Amino acid sequence: MSESINRVVLAYSGGLDTSVILKWLQQTYGCEVVTFTADLGQGEELEPARAKAQLLGIKPEHIFIEDLREEFVADYVFPMMRANALYEGQYLLGTSIARPLIAKKQIEIARKVGADAVSHGATGKGNDQVRFELGYYALAPDIRIIAPWREWTLTSREALIAFAEAHQIPVSKDKRGESPFSTDANLLHTSSEGKVLEDPWEEVPDYVYSRTESPEDAPNEAEYITVDFEKGDAVAVNGDPQSPATLLATLNEMGRRHGIGRLDLVENRFVGMKSRGMYETPGGTILHLAHRGIEQITLDRGAAHLKDELAVKYAGLLYNGFWFSPEREMLQAAIDHSQAKVSGTVRLKLYKGSASVVGRKSPNSLYSAGIVTFEDDAGAYDQRDAAGFIKLNALRLRLLGRRDGR
Amino acid sequence: MSESINRVVLAYSGGLDTSVILKWLQQTYGCEVVTFTADLGQGEELEPARAKAQLLGIKPEHIFIEDLREEFVADYVFPMMRANALYEGQYLLGTSIARPLIAKKQIEIARKVGADAVSHGATGKGNDQVRFELGYYALAPDIRIIAPWREWTLTSREALIAFAEAHQIPVSKDKRGESPFSTDANLLHTSSEGKVLEDPWEEVPDYVYSRTESPEDAPNEAEYITVDFEKGDAVAVNGDPQSPATLLATLNEMGRRHGIGRLDLVENRFVGMKSRGMYETPGGTILHLAHRGIEQITLDRGAAHLKDELAVKYAGLLYNGFWFSPEREMLQAAIDHSQAKVSGTVRLKLYKGSASVVGRKSPNSLYSAGIVTFEDDAGAYDQRDAAGFIKLNALRLRLLGRRDGR
Amino acid sequence: MSESINRVVLAYSGGLDTSVILKWLQQTYGCEVVTFTADLGQGEELEPARAKAQLLGIKPEHIFIEDLREEFVADYVFPMMRANALYEGQYLLGTSIARPLIAKKQIEIARKVGADAVSHGATGKGNDQVRFELGYYALAPDIRIIAPWREWTLTSREALIAFAEAHQIPVSKDKRGESPFSTDANLLHTSSEGKVLEDPWEEVPDYVYSRTESPEDAPNEAEYITVDFEKGDAVAVNGDPQSPATLLATLNEMGRRHGIGRLDLVENRFVGMKSRGMYETPGGTILHLAHRGIEQITLDRGAAHLKDELAVKYAGLLYNGFWFSPEREMLQAAIDHSQAKVSGTVRLKLYKGSASVVGRKSPNSLYSAGIVTFEDDAGAYDQRDAAGFIKLNALRLRLLGRRDGR
Amino acid sequence: MSESINRVVLAYSGGLDTSVILKWLQQTYGCEVVTFTADLGQGEELEPARAKAQLLGIKPEHIFIEDLREEFVADYVFPMMRANALYEGQYLLGTSIARPLIAKKQIEIARKVGADAVSHGATGKGNDQVRFELGYYALAPDIRIIAPWREWTLTSREALIAFAEAHQIPVSKDKRGESPFSTDANLLHTSSEGKVLEDPWEEVPDYVYSRTESPEDAPNEAEYITVDFEKGDAVAVNGDPQSPATLLATLNEMGRRHGIGRLDLVENRFVGMKSRGMYETPGGTILHLAHRGIEQITLDRGAAHLKDELAVKYAGLLYNGFWFSPEREMLQAAIDHSQAKVSGTVRLKLYKGSASVVGRKSPNSLYSAGIVTFEDDAGAYDQRDAAGFIKLNALRLRLLGRRDGR
Repeated sequence: MSESINRVVLAYSGGLDTSVILKWLQQTYGCEVVTFTADLGQGEELEPARAKAQLLGIKPEHIFIEDLREEFVADYVFPMMRANALYEGQYLLGTSIARPLIAKKQIEIARKVGADAVSHGATGKGNDQVRFELGYYALAPDIRIIAPWREWTLTSREALIAFAEAHQIPVSKDKRGESPFSTDANLLHTSSEGKVLEDPWEEVPDYVYSRTESPEDAPNEAEYITVDFEKGDAVAVNGDPQSPATLLATLNEMGRRHGIGRLDLVENRFVGMKSRGMYETPGGTILHLAHRGIEQITLDRGAAHLKDELAVKYAGLLYNGFWFSPEREMLQAAIDHSQAKVSGTVRLKLYKGSASVVGRKSPNSLYSAGIVTFEDDAGAYDQRDAAGFIKLNALRLRLLGRRDGR
Repeated sequence: MSESINRVVLAYSGGLDTSVILKWLQQTYGCEVVTFTADLGQGEELEPARAKAQLLGIKPEHIFIEDLREEFVADYVFPMMRANALYEGQYLLGTSIARPLIAKKQIEIARKVGADAVSHGATGKGNDQVRFELGYYALAPDIRIIAPWREWTLTSREALIAFAEAHQIPVSKDKRGESPFSTDANLLHTSSEGKVLEDPWEEVPDYVYSRTESPEDAPNEAEYITVDFEKGDAVAVNGDPQSPATLLATLNEMGRRHGIGRLDLVENRFVGMKSRGMYETPGGTILHLAHRGIEQITLDRGAAHLKDELAVKYAGLLYNGFWFSPEREMLQAAIDHSQAKVSGTVRLKLYKGSASVVGRKSPNSLYSAGIVTFEDDAGAYDQRDAAGFIKLNALRLRLLGRRDGR
Repeated sequence: MSESINRVVLAYSGGLDTSVILKWLQQTYGCEVVTFTADLGQGEELEPARAKAQLLGIKPEHIFIEDLREEFVADYVFPMMRANALYEGQYLLGTSIARPLIAKKQIEIARKVGADAVSHGATGKGNDQVRFELGYYALAPDIRIIAPWREWTLTSREALIAFAEAHQIPVSKDKRGESPFSTDANLLHTSSEGKVLEDPWEEVPDYVYSRTESPEDAPNEAEYITVDFEKGDAVAVNGDPQSPATLLATLNEMGRRHGIGRLDLVENRFVGMKSRGMYETPGGTILHLAHRGIEQITLDRGAAHLKDELAVKYAGLLYNGFWFSPEREMLQAAIDHSQAKVSGTVRLKLYKGSASVVGRKSPNSLYSAGIVTFEDDAGAYDQRDAAGFIKLNALRLRLLGRRDGR
Repeated sequence: MSESINRVVLAYSGGLDTSVILKWLQQTYGCEVVTFTADLGQGEELEPARAKAQLLGIKPEHIFIEDLREEFVADYVFPMMRANALYEGQYLLGTSIARPLIAKKQIEIARKVGADAVSHGATGKGNDQVRFELGYYALAPDIRIIAPWREWTLTSREALIAFAEAHQIPVSKDKRGESPFSTDANLLHTSSEGKVLEDPWEEVPDYVYSRTESPEDAPNEAEYITVDFEKGDAVAVNGDPQSPATLLATLNEMGRRHGIGRLDLVENRFVGMKSRGMYETPGGTILHLAHRGIEQITLDRGAAHLKDELAVKYAGLLYNGFWFSPEREMLQAAIDHSQAKVSGTVRLKLYKGSASVVGRKSPNSLYSAGIVTFEDDAGAYDQRDAAGFIKLNALRLRLLGRRDGR
């Protein structure tokens, strides 16, 4: 770690941990720190981060604060939703999808301010360090990366707080005691893990949930909503056209009210261990189901089945941090190609923890009541064709059966 | 269709349609009909089928009635559950998985009674004809198959009833009017399609549901249950060891009460058209989630991710009728190999339409709180290893970045 | 087959079979026949086909003859080569790739002349009927298709010749005896099957080969050539820029001389049977190897491995006739996305039946001698990173090992 | 590196590098060294390794020398051959497949002698370190691994030789100058890389080849051979039953004579860089082709196509060192399941660098001349079935075409 660093761009939340990192970077590397604080819809004010950075000695022109909510949803969440990506069959990848955008912005700022390094506050056990750093390296192959949690000796809460106090970093009262779990939040989801969640046999305590009503407390009446899609992306809720981030926020509020999108999961991290997390993805869960619903009538079977196979790979790449990789982009090209006609309206029922598709319609529908009907179809489909279809599909099995008996 | 048939084994439900088929076979082919009626847990008495067959002139020794519930769950449903198979991301394959067993039994009976043909009551537009016939052909490559719906001219309800009346087939009053939808049921699920369900924009009417309470009518209190697994198969509910079919019935009752497992789906049939169906899979939905839950802590990541890729193929094969195919058996061999340590207990919460895993434990758990903890891990994991891990995973991306810029 | 047909566009080679079909169509359907004869590089004169069509009563304005060689190579062969597609690990799909183009042209002509039907000369046992007809249906969903080999009674050679003689169709002397095998040829390959090839234990007789010298007769000196690529497509041979069809013809001549591209294969047809064929693909074999060679240094690993997985699916789709399908187009989008930097030069050695890549260079090379070298790499790669890389890749295996022992 | 080591099992070749490692381990760790030297068919005498180890002070009971040739071929090469595994479409994985066996034996010896560490001579840039160490960790999760090339400072040839001379390690004259390339050899292949091969545009010089005649020097007459298979494994050559290792040696000699199995490749290493290697796999190339040949007539299409997809994954796992992983074992279970009927005889022609399958026969053949024939098939296949087969395969494409036009 002896190389000299001149200027480092830090992903800065304004919280205790990244404030300690800020100071530690200044001390350890004797370098200038540039802070980057992004609004990804995590639901926190950003201006306090500015004040705190200034307090810690960061020059005003080196404090970057950006509202990335629309870019986040339009260019990251929506492409992922087109893929119907679920990691390990269930996780909607809410943390994974935010990291590449933060990494990209840090690199842009590093170029703007002539920084030679970037830094983040992710620990050495998790996936986020990988996602940040693969992003940095893909976009700026020769950047220096500083991951304090892998380097420093502040491995206990006490050491961290002692460091903070020794360096005039304000420590709010509620941070003195340790949080009983750790969270990450953005417009798509809130994740919680650690501490009280570490025993996968124990139910997640109520107080861990922050983004959704409990199903028990949700309204006793179901709510019906519609989501409109254009080329695979949601564009309106209940007929009201909305920008990507606004739309996701609208669905979040609906999902929150009805207790939708809670997930208790033990997952496999890229670094090789299992971890237990709890995710709340209210709007994203609705969006995922709605997208599947509109694809049901607008997507051809061949395209749909290929997508189902590719989605497994795609989700794995995102989870592992390979957003900026040729293979993710290849999959995206294939997926996006399939979405040209994925337009129409989906109707969903929200009720006490569940979202269900109850109707879908589209000017591009491939569903043909005239063909599928049990009634007379006026010759649209000749049932005798099925005999030949089956005979030839069976031919190889018959040859096998003759050879092998059963 | 001029070849002469001596004896045909008919999959006979005792209902109007297969009774008409029975008579039509006798008339059209001048052949002896052998009936096979299986109890797969569809929830109907079988003895009336025997009486009706006798009434229609079938010799007692040619009437076969079998309770296949245990075999169905143990040898068909459970292997499929090990795969976490979902067709088109959502459908638990409740109809698909029953057909191969019926086909197998018909062939066994055909051999026993020296029949040269088999017959079924599936129409020429659906998947079931394919599933039955691929099964027949795989097991008895030279069997003759008669699919009356593809051959006869009884294409309207009126014609069918007229034929029945002309041939002294009893037509119950409630069968005179047409059913507003068509169903298939077994221990795993009930499916409904056709008629009132043919417009995919219209919500499924309440009266179509037969296996589950509506979530609104489900208890206001959540119920917590446990499911125990041994080597990938469920063996006990709430600590009570049960045979496969009994266990599924137990979960069905729990699921029914809490309104679990309803699915409104537009799916792609193998014969090339889209159809809209409604499925109720109460116990199967719980089982599927519970199995995923126990795999989360007992299955290695490499095995789990491979399974996720194979599951897409596996589900497609089952849906299309290729249970008795070498490729399904190859996938099963791979899947079963992975299940040796998939044992333990899953705890679920059932509430108003949702089942959720809330805890899992296992003597074979690969989850290690000691490694994943945010606390001091006593050297179980060296965070500095992550730096090298990331660096080498990034190497190719850095070489790309140097070449291509971004 | 009773529907009335007014005008049919026949894929017409000018040979005996399609001449008989022409006459049979006129007779059976009382319809006007429009002929379409394409030059796909099969190496036959097309003008005799015009004369023969006229002789058989086709109006001059209903005789279409087109040189499709450039379109064939640029828009069909090259996209397929970008995919490195091999059916069943070995077959370069020379027949499969030609059918979609012929189908497309027939449909275009049908629209131009107002025809309501199309027809082809492929038999009912092969893949080509499927490839033609899936193409017709995809492009003109309501077209009528006439496949004489599946309809007529001319099932023996004698019947065919008798029909020809009865209808004043000239039968050349060499057609009176049956050919000892059947062939299909275009600029990419010649295939041979049937008769003398039907025993897969018997070596293909020398006289079956028509496009390549036998390796034994090839020059005793190796020839070294170069192929230049731009974005995945070959653009020059030995530094000489050539159009797609010219380039393939050049490579064909080189391959022919050195006995390259012979393949004796038993393959699985889409219709369910195995068949034995012999393929000669001289230039295509060189092209395939050269493309792999240039990808080796210009394609990232992630892209390359994804391509290897997709190539299996892609080849299956092409073989089965699904060129005009959404899923083939999705795969093509992914593949084409990967080719932006696949430019450079490959050097190959041609010698007595083998083509081998012996060198490759590119301005876009990702190969870095500075990193891979056994010599001092001046810090380009830190070998200690490998320890962490291995440790984290091993973590899950260690957890498994602790649980399971070995 | 400060932990104390008592006893280490070193993979010891007897060459200069591992002799230096031996001494370095003694010095650096003050530990007892146990040597393990395996005969995997690399073609070197093993007894000199014993003498050298003794000379370097290893106790006789700590010198382990084993002939692993039969185990290597039967339990590693053959299972891999059943998979038709090729890395990046071309490489037969000759080095990758040997490492797991060596790792396994080292761990067995470590247990026997109570060693707490293992060591190997692979460098920090290559794949072999990963393959060795993933094997060690999978089999002995808590073993200590010492990888001297990643630790020491002997980074130049000169430093290595100086160390050797300073420690009385004999340095043969031909080792004083640097080898112009580096090799690895076993019964399956010889690989060469580095130095003179580092420019991928330069043809591999003749003197690098050691296992095969150049095609130019190979006999002017082709040689025809047969290989017999039982359940996917080769059991006889030219009708002569042979043990696995003997059989591979026989094919190696045949391949050597005819210049078969040379491959010049730029490949993607797991550690993220591209490297250029030259492989000679004479017998393995013949075996691979022969296995594909016998599968052509004995394997069902569904099984064959699934295998083709799995083979890509399987090869990637082997290359990356994941032999002892659940996912490789799952794939193996699927693959082995498919081989039950893969028995019969393949005939090949060997000539000047090429091996080609020219015939195959089997009592289990699924090839049916009676069905595929152009001649009258006596009703074995009804060509009219193809019409229905195509119609239903086309249905979704027609619905698409109606919606989208073209």
